[in-house]
Amino acid sequence: MSRWEPDAAGRLTKAATALFAEQGYDETTVAQIAEAAGLTKRTFFRYFADKREVLFDGSHEFRGRWLRGIDAAPASAAPMEAVAGAFDEVARLFEDRHSFARVRAQIISGHPELQERELIKLQLLSADVAAALAARGLSPNAATLAAQTAVTVFHVAFARWVSQDDPVALRRLIDESLSELRSVTTA
Amino acid sequence: MSRWEPDAAGRLTKAATALFAEQGYDETTVAQIAEAAGLTKRTFFRYFADKREVLFDGSHEFRGRWLRGIDAAPASAAPMEAVAGAFDEVARLFEDRHSFARVRAQIISGHPELQERELIKLQLLSADVAAALAARGLSPNAATLAAQTAVTVFHVAFARWVSQDDPVALRRLIDESLSELRSVTTA
Repeated sequence: MSRWEPDAAGRLTKAATALFAEQGYDETTVAQIAEAAGLTKRTFFRYFADKREVLFDGSHEFRGRWLRGIDAAPASAAPMEAVAGAFDEVARLFEDRHSFARVRAQIISGHPELQERELIKLQLLSADVAAALAARGLSPNAATLAAQTAVTVFHVAFARWVSQDDPVALRRLIDESLSELRSVTTA
Repeated sequence: MSRWEPDAAGRLTKAATALFAEQGYDETTVAQIAEAAGLTKRTFFRYFADKREVLFDGSHEFRGRWLRGIDAAPASAAPMEAVAGAFDEVARLFEDRHSFARVRAQIISGHPELQERELIKLQLLSADVAAALAARGLSPNAATLAAQTAVTVFHVAFARWVSQDDPVALRRLIDESLSELRSVTTA
């Protein structure tokens, strides 16, 4: 019954991003996204529950990168060394998604309900990162503090990255945020 | 038309806390809260929009304490010294609210929609704290990092405090969280 479409999800995301940037998120319909991608609405709904899901579809991969990065660190690594492995993985993920990330950030900043959803996703990520650090032997408090700090450092760096023109700067901006955090907390 | 009731809000909060603890949050009605406080439902609704508001009524005072604590610090204070002033203020606020805080924390942990609301309140607080630190001359990035860290440190300490029996331990637990954060981020 269903016809396989090569990289339908990627094509839909690309078409949606272009339309969101051109005419605005609120003004864009699923029908327009599907048409621009050369696909049907029905195909759209096989990949995304709704228009909003296009913006949050990468969450699973994002979370996976964090956790794989931490798990790959040697058992002897200090918490922030393990987290640095996650930063490497996540920064690589975003290298070729700068345009999408910029459009997405702008849409989210204009929609409080999307901001809330983003925030909750980050909080759930933080809980997962804390569990991964606790599994390495860190106390629950230390794991929560390290995880929250890591997510905050990433979040601040990410906001700078989407406001700049350099797609590969994310990893460096994360390190800058981390040094800045160390200097404000120890001063 | 309306009769003044001495400390009606306080009586309603106390009655609500007792009922939530005894019979559960979901099982408690506004009518029961009003009755237990010796007041009418109508009086309840002059102070709280709904039952949920009893749990979040302190947000304004909580936020005020943070901001007053920071503003009271001398202009020469380092960011975390200014934040320490906020920690003092906030810990004092909670000293005589330990029972309420414990019941409240338990209710919130069992209701995802209340957890989300709590999270959003903390995020808004963090933005306000960042603005207060930026007004003291900190860069926007450093202010955001310091504010998020402060709120995280508080949040972790608060979770320990509500799981313990010592009402006056909060300020000490905050300091312990801060040292722990410094040690995980610098190791």
